[in-house]
Amino acid sequence: MTELLPLRYGFLGPEGTFSETALLGWLGSPTADVVPHSSVISALDAVRAGEIAGAMVPLENSVEGSVAATLDALASGPSLMILAESHVQVTFSLLVREGTQLADVRYVTTHPHAEAQCRGWLAKHLPDAQFASAASTAAAAADVASSSSHFDAAIAAPLAGRVYGLVSIGENIGDNPAETRFVLVGPPSAPPPATGADKTSLVLYMGEDHPGALLEILTEFAVRGVNLTRIESRPTGGGIGDYFFSVDIEGHVDDARVGEALMGLRRVCAEVRFLGSYPSVDGVTPTIRRGVADEEFRDAQAWLARVRDGRG
Amino acid sequence: MTELLPLRYGFLGPEGTFSETALLGWLGSPTADVVPHSSVISALDAVRAGEIAGAMVPLENSVEGSVAATLDALASGPSLMILAESHVQVTFSLLVREGTQLADVRYVTTHPHAEAQCRGWLAKHLPDAQFASAASTAAAAADVASSSSHFDAAIAAPLAGRVYGLVSIGENIGDNPAETRFVLVGPPSAPPPATGADKTSLVLYMGEDHPGALLEILTEFAVRGVNLTRIESRPTGGGIGDYFFSVDIEGHVDDARVGEALMGLRRVCAEVRFLGSYPSVDGVTPTIRRGVADEEFRDAQAWLARVRDGRG
Amino acid sequence: MTELLPLRYGFLGPEGTFSETALLGWLGSPTADVVPHSSVISALDAVRAGEIAGAMVPLENSVEGSVAATLDALASGPSLMILAESHVQVTFSLLVREGTQLADVRYVTTHPHAEAQCRGWLAKHLPDAQFASAASTAAAAADVASSSSHFDAAIAAPLAGRVYGLVSIGENIGDNPAETRFVLVGPPSAPPPATGADKTSLVLYMGEDHPGALLEILTEFAVRGVNLTRIESRPTGGGIGDYFFSVDIEGHVDDARVGEALMGLRRVCAEVRFLGSYPSVDGVTPTIRRGVADEEFRDAQAWLARVRDGRG
Amino acid sequence: MTELLPLRYGFLGPEGTFSETALLGWLGSPTADVVPHSSVISALDAVRAGEIAGAMVPLENSVEGSVAATLDALASGPSLMILAESHVQVTFSLLVREGTQLADVRYVTTHPHAEAQCRGWLAKHLPDAQFASAASTAAAAADVASSSSHFDAAIAAPLAGRVYGLVSIGENIGDNPAETRFVLVGPPSAPPPATGADKTSLVLYMGEDHPGALLEILTEFAVRGVNLTRIESRPTGGGIGDYFFSVDIEGHVDDARVGEALMGLRRVCAEVRFLGSYPSVDGVTPTIRRGVADEEFRDAQAWLARVRDGRG
Repeated sequence: MTELLPLRYGFLGPEGTFSETALLGWLGSPTADVVPHSSVISALDAVRAGEIAGAMVPLENSVEGSVAATLDALASGPSLMILAESHVQVTFSLLVREGTQLADVRYVTTHPHAEAQCRGWLAKHLPDAQFASAASTAAAAADVASSSSHFDAAIAAPLAGRVYGLVSIGENIGDNPAETRFVLVGPPSAPPPATGADKTSLVLYMGEDHPGALLEILTEFAVRGVNLTRIESRPTGGGIGDYFFSVDIEGHVDDARVGEALMGLRRVCAEVRFLGSYPSVDGVTPTIRRGVADEEFRDAQAWLARVRDGRG
Repeated sequence: MTELLPLRYGFLGPEGTFSETALLGWLGSPTADVVPHSSVISALDAVRAGEIAGAMVPLENSVEGSVAATLDALASGPSLMILAESHVQVTFSLLVREGTQLADVRYVTTHPHAEAQCRGWLAKHLPDAQFASAASTAAAAADVASSSSHFDAAIAAPLAGRVYGLVSIGENIGDNPAETRFVLVGPPSAPPPATGADKTSLVLYMGEDHPGALLEILTEFAVRGVNLTRIESRPTGGGIGDYFFSVDIEGHVDDARVGEALMGLRRVCAEVRFLGSYPSVDGVTPTIRRGVADEEFRDAQAWLARVRDGRG
Repeated sequence: MTELLPLRYGFLGPEGTFSETALLGWLGSPTADVVPHSSVISALDAVRAGEIAGAMVPLENSVEGSVAATLDALASGPSLMILAESHVQVTFSLLVREGTQLADVRYVTTHPHAEAQCRGWLAKHLPDAQFASAASTAAAAADVASSSSHFDAAIAAPLAGRVYGLVSIGENIGDNPAETRFVLVGPPSAPPPATGADKTSLVLYMGEDHPGALLEILTEFAVRGVNLTRIESRPTGGGIGDYFFSVDIEGHVDDARVGEALMGLRRVCAEVRFLGSYPSVDGVTPTIRRGVADEEFRDAQAWLARVRDGRG
Repeated sequence: MTELLPLRYGFLGPEGTFSETALLGWLGSPTADVVPHSSVISALDAVRAGEIAGAMVPLENSVEGSVAATLDALASGPSLMILAESHVQVTFSLLVREGTQLADVRYVTTHPHAEAQCRGWLAKHLPDAQFASAASTAAAAADVASSSSHFDAAIAAPLAGRVYGLVSIGENIGDNPAETRFVLVGPPSAPPPATGADKTSLVLYMGEDHPGALLEILTEFAVRGVNLTRIESRPTGGGIGDYFFSVDIEGHVDDARVGEALMGLRRVCAEVRFLGSYPSVDGVTPTIRRGVADEEFRDAQAWLARVRDGRG
């Protein structure tokens, strides 16, 4: 007798990361069966191996920029697909073991990005503290939670405090409001239906690196009225000056204008990797300029058929 | 019992015009059943009325430029289609009635374009002659042939001399080599099959006359690697500054790159009138840049279908 | 003792043409010293020879399109300059000798353009009349005025009726309102000061006829926010497919954006001929997009100088 | 009595980093007076404070991509200038305390980028080792060198082994050849003279984030024949989707084509920050297309001056 098992999802761990927050928020259930992974690569490899239905990993942060590990892992190896995106407000707390006072804090550990984002608060409240890098903010919290820790405090997400049994003695200590964009990555499949407010993610490799290649790519989009919302250049590994592009655009692969632009890219790029079409988290319907709506494409196609048949 | 009648063709007359030369050349038979028309419009109207299978009319001259009457007649009224093109070397003779000597020539008639093209020869050989305009070079020859003519000589095609029984006392009197491009215009139909060296003619009306409209049109072509060989602006009749464009491009409507460009134009223009795809008279196969060959379009389309199905 | 002589101007004759109307209107005096010329070329040659201060000639008509003779005469030979433009409403009258009634009219002469523009009226009121071509509408009127004329009526401007002593038996007989744009052409000189609503006329020769040449030209304009109001291709005389472009743009050569665009064209074209900057007849100030106003150019130039000096 | 002191330079420390290798190579003297800084920001702040004449910091790596800390530090705060660039081949060694054998190695520390670049070698030779992150490869070496270190080995540059008295038991253990591009950053000044093979670095902030902004920027470059060699988008900190661009181009700010492109950008961008023109490390002279050489700009400028004066 076959039992229907609930789907299991992974996230960039350890427990208590913003990735977990994003995943639980997306699942809509704080008690879902979720599993931490020690790196973006291991999370995505688990998806590839079929061990999990999807993995929530960070793609970019409004202060720190893109997450290279994620961009690179999606750009090579067996294909994966972005199924959804999620924006999480990033807030930092100063987490300590029960009983530690602010005045006691001399050694602090956290991820370098987090330290960078809290520099103002730290300069004011902990001007003499020393900092050590941790692999993630949650790992820093886990370290502080251990009885043998060298550190007095960790800078991490509030969730990490709850997970590791730490106490917060400083909340919202980030200098500026920041948010991280996470993506839920699954195995290749037909994209979810278009909602009217969708995004599509692509990886584009140029053939020969001729000077006008990027202009050529942008023109393929512009001629079909397709707007870019993000473009990142990443090294191919072939040497300084050799890049590929990671791109997000407005619209769904089933939209006619997006489809024609993708075919154009397929023809002029050495390789186009489709990373998925998924609902845009902001739900804003893009403005579609004259000439690129689906019905205008359909009308033009019918007209061309008539012209070719002599009924034009 | 049904009798199969040979097709009848018309040309811009009267007899002896370069249009007739072009038509007989295209038919490949000097004894074909051809009929002169007094104007481009009447020739094209005879096609529209089904009286003739096609009409040979001039489209442009390498010295005088485009023939507005033809461009305008093709751009409005019931649809017509260019079935073929022909280039005719234009040579002018000074034609007189038997017995007239060069020294006797004082009054000359011809079409103003012909006079313009022979100005150097005339200044040297007939410095004191007076000129009067005729509706065509052949009409000038016909006038001189009449016994009551006011004129001593006509400047016209050698054929006109033979047709009207005149004698040539000056040959090849044009200042520069010149040629005229003629088109054979028939009723709407499916275009002849692509030969690999084809041209396509179009009429493009902008919607609103926004400043970048022409740049937008050229970009629709350029993105699909479609080259223009001629572009003419013509007034719409709506006032100074209101134009439509008459355009020739390399390629056949059945070529994928041409088809996609035409659909793009259909979407951004107020109106696109397809005037036909036909073999290019020079037989030169256009250079097709990377990314726009038919097989690249087919591959891209198949790839897009796979991506949309989740098999990408 | 030196006497200051009034300037003398020429126009495309004979007397009574719309060119004369345009010239007298521009001079603001019906009694000015003006002189007819038998052709556009002879009028412009008189300017080149210093015989007249300027010549009023037609450039384009809202129904018939551009006037090739004018475009070509301006594009070659010693330089000339457009000093002003003028739009004249073109109206046609049916002009006869005193005593002729409409019912008597069987033979009509006029310029072919005029016949084309009155076709509707003629079909209704003179369905059986025969037409002969004249070199101009004014020449047709002059012919009818002669006692030995073969013709009963001329189609021409009302002014031609007054000049040649004819009577109008049909007024405003054109099928559609039409206007002609005339330009006053003088010797090369510094253009009149910018008014804020100016036009600039150019002739552009491509170097080698590479496919993207026109797109390249339009991009030089677009990048500096310069709008085209007219573009005509004309044959260079070198063979079918060899064109130059006659172009009008919004703005004055002293405007920074126009100056930079002209320098760009000078660098990519084989030849750029400047035909003048002059007040636009419609007086409409063009919209100047962000980044191309004179003060923005000045600011950018000052900034670049600072950057180059290390004070950026 | 004034003493002329030799200039002092800083680098991203600690001692033994590839930054130090780059700096010593650039100075051409292994005994120069150089000083390590604990972060890119502190090195650049020391330049701003006038404590050092320049700082050598990493900008991008051929495997890991751009160094966000450097891009961001250059893009905000008081202006700085890139004076030179340097490419350093990145090689990794497995460094241990005297006496440690490969078989003894269980705990390894290094920078995460270095671990990523040696993954293949590590999987083969140290399949069971555990890894901990360090702030830099040199910091990892320093840690291992301390008698109280928890770690058996560090992955770092050969130089770090010499600096910290460690022994290499694995050389060139990187999976792929990699190189890092360093830049020497100094205070604002006039750039060094153009060599013919130069680069220019810029930071570009869009005004409003309209969809075509990037296309607009690239067109400003393309129209003047200026090639991009690197483009990075970085978050402005204003929220997901708000980016600025860090760009390298071929050419020197004193080149006419670069100067005009920069002025164009200044006019359409909200802010352009000039980060310097400096000799390209590869010494390759860029191909300069027709129309954008300095002498063509000079000729065009002289021509425009003549046209504006009426001497055109």
